[in-house]
Amino acid sequence: MATSARGMTMVETNLMAELTWAEYQDRLRRQNPVILLPVGALEQHGPHLPLGTDHMIPTAICKGVAERISALVAPAFNYGYKSQPKMGGGNHFPGTTSLDGNNLSLTLRDVLKEFARHGSRRVAVVDGHYENQMFLIEGIDLAMRELRYDGINDMKIIRLEYWDFTSSETLAKVFPEGFPGYALEHAAVMETSISLHIHPHLVRLDKLPKDPPADFPPYDVYPTNTAWVPPSGVLSPAKSASAAKGKALFEEYVRTIAAALKKEFPPKATARAAAAAKSTKRKR
Amino acid sequence: MATSARGMTMVETNLMAELTWAEYQDRLRRQNPVILLPVGALEQHGPHLPLGTDHMIPTAICKGVAERISALVAPAFNYGYKSQPKMGGGNHFPGTTSLDGNNLSLTLRDVLKEFARHGSRRVAVVDGHYENQMFLIEGIDLAMRELRYDGINDMKIIRLEYWDFTSSETLAKVFPEGFPGYALEHAAVMETSISLHIHPHLVRLDKLPKDPPADFPPYDVYPTNTAWVPPSGVLSPAKSASAAKGKALFEEYVRTIAAALKKEFPPKATARAAAAAKSTKRKR
Amino acid sequence: MATSARGMTMVETNLMAELTWAEYQDRLRRQNPVILLPVGALEQHGPHLPLGTDHMIPTAICKGVAERISALVAPAFNYGYKSQPKMGGGNHFPGTTSLDGNNLSLTLRDVLKEFARHGSRRVAVVDGHYENQMFLIEGIDLAMRELRYDGINDMKIIRLEYWDFTSSETLAKVFPEGFPGYALEHAAVMETSISLHIHPHLVRLDKLPKDPPADFPPYDVYPTNTAWVPPSGVLSPAKSASAAKGKALFEEYVRTIAAALKKEFPPKATARAAAAAKSTKRKR
Amino acid sequence: MATSARGMTMVETNLMAELTWAEYQDRLRRQNPVILLPVGALEQHGPHLPLGTDHMIPTAICKGVAERISALVAPAFNYGYKSQPKMGGGNHFPGTTSLDGNNLSLTLRDVLKEFARHGSRRVAVVDGHYENQMFLIEGIDLAMRELRYDGINDMKIIRLEYWDFTSSETLAKVFPEGFPGYALEHAAVMETSISLHIHPHLVRLDKLPKDPPADFPPYDVYPTNTAWVPPSGVLSPAKSASAAKGKALFEEYVRTIAAALKKEFPPKATARAAAAAKSTKRKR
Amino acid sequence: MATSARGMTMVETNLMAELTWAEYQDRLRRQNPVILLPVGALEQHGPHLPLGTDHMIPTAICKGVAERISALVAPAFNYGYKSQPKMGGGNHFPGTTSLDGNNLSLTLRDVLKEFARHGSRRVAVVDGHYENQMFLIEGIDLAMRELRYDGINDMKIIRLEYWDFTSSETLAKVFPEGFPGYALEHAAVMETSISLHIHPHLVRLDKLPKDPPADFPPYDVYPTNTAWVPPSGVLSPAKSASAAKGKALFEEYVRTIAAALKKEFPPKATARAAAAAKSTKRKR
Amino acid sequence: MATSARGMTMVETNLMAELTWAEYQDRLRRQNPVILLPVGALEQHGPHLPLGTDHMIPTAICKGVAERISALVAPAFNYGYKSQPKMGGGNHFPGTTSLDGNNLSLTLRDVLKEFARHGSRRVAVVDGHYENQMFLIEGIDLAMRELRYDGINDMKIIRLEYWDFTSSETLAKVFPEGFPGYALEHAAVMETSISLHIHPHLVRLDKLPKDPPADFPPYDVYPTNTAWVPPSGVLSPAKSASAAKGKALFEEYVRTIAAALKKEFPPKATARAAAAAKSTKRKR
Repeated sequence: MATSARGMTMVETNLMAELTWAEYQDRLRRQNPVILLPVGALEQHGPHLPLGTDHMIPTAICKGVAERISALVAPAFNYGYKSQPKMGGGNHFPGTTSLDGNNLSLTLRDVLKEFARHGSRRVAVVDGHYENQMFLIEGIDLAMRELRYDGINDMKIIRLEYWDFTSSETLAKVFPEGFPGYALEHAAVMETSISLHIHPHLVRLDKLPKDPPADFPPYDVYPTNTAWVPPSGVLSPAKSASAAKGKALFEEYVRTIAAALKKEFPPKATARAAAAAKSTKRKR
Repeated sequence: MATSARGMTMVETNLMAELTWAEYQDRLRRQNPVILLPVGALEQHGPHLPLGTDHMIPTAICKGVAERISALVAPAFNYGYKSQPKMGGGNHFPGTTSLDGNNLSLTLRDVLKEFARHGSRRVAVVDGHYENQMFLIEGIDLAMRELRYDGINDMKIIRLEYWDFTSSETLAKVFPEGFPGYALEHAAVMETSISLHIHPHLVRLDKLPKDPPADFPPYDVYPTNTAWVPPSGVLSPAKSASAAKGKALFEEYVRTIAAALKKEFPPKATARAAAAAKSTKRKR
Repeated sequence: MATSARGMTMVETNLMAELTWAEYQDRLRRQNPVILLPVGALEQHGPHLPLGTDHMIPTAICKGVAERISALVAPAFNYGYKSQPKMGGGNHFPGTTSLDGNNLSLTLRDVLKEFARHGSRRVAVVDGHYENQMFLIEGIDLAMRELRYDGINDMKIIRLEYWDFTSSETLAKVFPEGFPGYALEHAAVMETSISLHIHPHLVRLDKLPKDPPADFPPYDVYPTNTAWVPPSGVLSPAKSASAAKGKALFEEYVRTIAAALKKEFPPKATARAAAAAKSTKRKR
Repeated sequence: MATSARGMTMVETNLMAELTWAEYQDRLRRQNPVILLPVGALEQHGPHLPLGTDHMIPTAICKGVAERISALVAPAFNYGYKSQPKMGGGNHFPGTTSLDGNNLSLTLRDVLKEFARHGSRRVAVVDGHYENQMFLIEGIDLAMRELRYDGINDMKIIRLEYWDFTSSETLAKVFPEGFPGYALEHAAVMETSISLHIHPHLVRLDKLPKDPPADFPPYDVYPTNTAWVPPSGVLSPAKSASAAKGKALFEEYVRTIAAALKKEFPPKATARAAAAAKSTKRKR
Repeated sequence: MATSARGMTMVETNLMAELTWAEYQDRLRRQNPVILLPVGALEQHGPHLPLGTDHMIPTAICKGVAERISALVAPAFNYGYKSQPKMGGGNHFPGTTSLDGNNLSLTLRDVLKEFARHGSRRVAVVDGHYENQMFLIEGIDLAMRELRYDGINDMKIIRLEYWDFTSSETLAKVFPEGFPGYALEHAAVMETSISLHIHPHLVRLDKLPKDPPADFPPYDVYPTNTAWVPPSGVLSPAKSASAAKGKALFEEYVRTIAAALKKEFPPKATARAAAAAKSTKRKR
Repeated sequence: MATSARGMTMVETNLMAELTWAEYQDRLRRQNPVILLPVGALEQHGPHLPLGTDHMIPTAICKGVAERISALVAPAFNYGYKSQPKMGGGNHFPGTTSLDGNNLSLTLRDVLKEFARHGSRRVAVVDGHYENQMFLIEGIDLAMRELRYDGINDMKIIRLEYWDFTSSETLAKVFPEGFPGYALEHAAVMETSISLHIHPHLVRLDKLPKDPPADFPPYDVYPTNTAWVPPSGVLSPAKSASAAKGKALFEEYVRTIAAALKKEFPPKATARAAAAAKSTKRKR
């Protein structure tokens, strides 16, 4: 807590949940910040990473990005779509706690519409769980449609999966023997490295499994053939993970995502958005 | 982080998101703990309390309860049902970010069904936002119905609003001039006091509004008549709030909720639940 | 049936279901009446009150109000949300016939949108079943949202639970030994008294149970712990009920609800609403 | 009200809403009665018939049937599916107040499941509004499916549109010049006659329109081509309607529907259903 | 494939699925054609007609109509609403593959909204499965409503069941001994004749059942009383079917449906629709 | 059409829509065939490929597979999920006709449940439109869940995107200069080649655009930034496409998918499935 020029307390935070409504309104009007919404899951991440990995990492990235570009971080979506064998080991593990796809879409729709009601026209949905992607796309589409019904046509939303911001240079450093592809990167080198960087006390390195990489056929079967999935839930060996690699990845994500958002949401839009905020309030 | 007898790392935590799936499974099998699910909102709480008040308080209570009875705390529901004028000031404030009721119900349904799939039969939904109540009840009812369809008849769920655990003794201390009733306790003495106890750095005491208590007619009007709601969003004066009162309230909630859960979920159920966990896994 | 000045038959009724469409249209255009929508339930009300109590009472109140302010009474919603142990004894009783919450919300949404299509901008939803409240709020919110999508921004809706119109004076008369609070007033003194006033032939006074008041803990449990609920379904003794008390309550409700609606829907709005009715018809 | 042998009051009624839960349970156990559910609409019926015609007629028929076979009459569904031009004049008339189809289906589903929970296995849905038919079929199908999920496989439901019980003899009497077919029988001879029989005070005979029969092409157009629909909303002339014809129709419906239900729900089923009622209660 | 004046290949087709997006756009802009959407079912049609009968016939009719009026044929809906005993034999037959009603409605809604987005304002839904009718009506109503929300008020949709275009002259030829009515025309003379005309190789004439016509009571029962339905699934004898009758029926449908669409969608609308197409594109 | 040993006509087809219900039942009982369900879209595929490409290709593959392993081909899903810029050019093109995700999921759910009701326990969903993937997964999950509710636990479903069956050898032949990855393969070399093989008359080779490959940033933006998408809708140059390459791809898909299904659905299951078919029929 700090003391402002006018002698008033001021909580220095970019976390929306920690702001008062008046401070939030003030930030929207004065800075027209991007609202960053971390979306994750509660999902098995092997015997060495916590169940919350997929919401913890995007939340940490959002905080880093928010510091760079004075964005706000909305409270995370802690639960995501059902884990798939080839993407996250499958939904049969204990601890994996998933939502029906439509609920995830509709919840995102609702939250986006509320941000628009507040006067924001700049949102970035930062996804940390691959299975969420299409349901987030649908949620965004439904929100844009209903905002249009409400006469709001200038909302702009970015959606991203953070790992798509890995440069080939960084990939080369993280995988000196060659990047095997994102397909098996669940609870593996990248997520373990990032976790070692952002919350090392939550990584049980001595529990790292020695399973070989998963080897999936080019189709899926339902119910899940659990024999296809390594018993540990880790899709490829993470033993080469390190905090240093995690730092490189994490800092690249923060830097490049911040840059992308700066480009997509240039500062000149401020005045217009503030006006929008006002007229919206009048309208409803 | 500690080191266990067997020389393995051990993260000391009751937070489900921080556990690995293997640890979570182990806890379920050995201890059959209650899973505590904090449910809140992102909602204006006056110019002095953070938007996240309604999920921060139940989360803090759940952590306290979990320590006492070795329960687990699932990640919070950070968004809740639409704020109502008489309950939370109304949904027109910036920052208030609400869900359609059915989405909240269905999301809770999904999460509860997943806990049951993990083998748990003991869940407590700890609500910090009054407007959620009926939609949580519906979500629980839908979950119980679908679990029944799946042949699971022994799930037991507790749902509570934490303030209902205030004793008349504590009320008398918190309101020495007489308790005016829960109706106007939004962002008022009780929530402010608890916030001063659990996160004083997030309370802007110098922003406490001087509005008189709200005076509502015995009906509601739509669209919201914003003239009925104090401009600050605070429904009754909070000036008598104090960290000491907050401590008394908070500790009473933790103690009595823990006691209630101990009574409703007696330890002898352990073996049965472990068996259930096993047979469920076989079944699906 | 009467004969109008022009020698035409004229059915003297405020019941929308008894009007022809032409008469209804005429009433809307000339008088711009409030449309009263009674919403209730089919729910156990002890061994002495009929299952329909919660829709019968608000229907009777609406008829009384309609006479006073020339309102119209729409057909009642006869089925409501699931009975809760602490509010109505619980949904396990035979005869209690309840809807999923979302269906209730959507049905109300649909009906409200239709009233708006007819040209009405003045509706009062009169609820007689506490469990309905939040789902009615949601239904109204959804209707207002979709009406807004349709360019209709001047709909105004009142929602009320009738018992909130009990004055402290009347409470003192009805409960000379002190009002124990609304919490246990299910099938108890107030509902029994009102029933004795409006349909005494449907009250089985000799079946009044002698159960002591229910004593609930400060939480709920699912599935319902039926041992908490008096076997009769009556939450507190009704033996002090009387037709005289019922008359006092009923007449107060009619009088004060009528007054509130008169205040919220002042006559000067007539012309505007008639215009709205016309332009809506043109639009769609 | 009568006095039973044991000196207790006894309300003589077949209306479920007028029974107490204990009486309802007793009726179910002792008599295993058919539960009759009248389903209608709030829909324009020309300038001479009330908006409630479609729920009033099936309610009256149900009461008549209930007397004959000791059935119970559940509260009516007062609102139905959207009026179609060729069936009911179209949904553009003021007063016509309709539901989205899925809401009607789901509401019926819910109510049927509740009757099954009470222990009933014998329900007849008596429809008075043609547009409802397919949505009622869907609601019944969804209820049967979900009851099956709950292990209830012996529910039996009859669904009927009452006019299908008109014999060719009666048709010949009602239409001595030949029956033009059901297609244009909206607010026409049959409904007007029945209304003259069951509630003559609600028929404005002097308002009978003189429009010729509607003449529709073999397709539908959206939005409704209102020029196709007689301005009165009456699809064919009702001038030959009479109370005597209404009596003949009404009594035939009551007699033949009662007979059909007696055949489909033979008395021998009583014991089994009572047992079912018991085991269901144990199960849930 | 042909070669156009400009030496470019040109696929001569009215099938939307065979056009490229550029050709489709070009057709919409230049010709403003009606889009014909065949809707059917996958449903038992006796031992002699294929399961796809109900989508094959309307598809064939649409192709014929398209040739006459330069319409486009969208890909068919191959699955429809649940077969009913009196309409299609009932949903218990193997092969009958049906959708919940609401899914059918929403799918139609979506497709119609997309046609509108493309710039079309002229659609005809050509139904070949009676059970679909009300769910198609609902889907159209929902589409029109949401298009209205999007500011599109000039969409026009025709919906038809093709058999309603049978003239009394043709009926007299097809049924020289008198038309028994449409009620039992499932997999019977009309559908068999049309099938013999449009795809004789798919008609197993030697499998024609000899069942007498079905004889249904004036109500329905759930679960389906399969004893009411002829074991073959054919509701009335088809032995008098012939390719010549099929040709007469088919050609009448094509001719009269084409004429009706020409009347409802007169050519002068072209320019306006093209403009609409443009403005829509600008808008979204 | 052929003549069987018993002198009866026999339609030689693997298309479910062309079978009668009796033949279908017979095939299920005798052969226990896999049911192949092609799922596609109606979506822009550049100026040279038809809108139906995504349902035409999987339908053709299914037919090929069906011949090899005596499977059945169910009618295709002709409409799919909304086209995404990076996957299919985006949903803003005329002709692209898409469904909300939940409708696609629910429709698949319904169809799969019906196949199970018929007695089948072996289904393969063959997807030709990448955007469908997650909504198909959800539809399958919902179907498996509801089948479980109905006591059916032995349903087995394969879901595949056909391009995942391309071997590295074939990729090397199709892309002699190196495979640029699946990301931009929309309306490009692979789809164009396959189309040249299976329906050359529908490929407008002279319309092949000369756009360079699309170059997308690592995030998505809503509303779609159409400047990112080549105006043709083709994401990478298709000029090296050929019928020979298409033949190689197509035949590999047919061969390897057939082999995979043979492995996953071994013949020995026949007897059990036939028994299942019987018991299911008895059950419902």
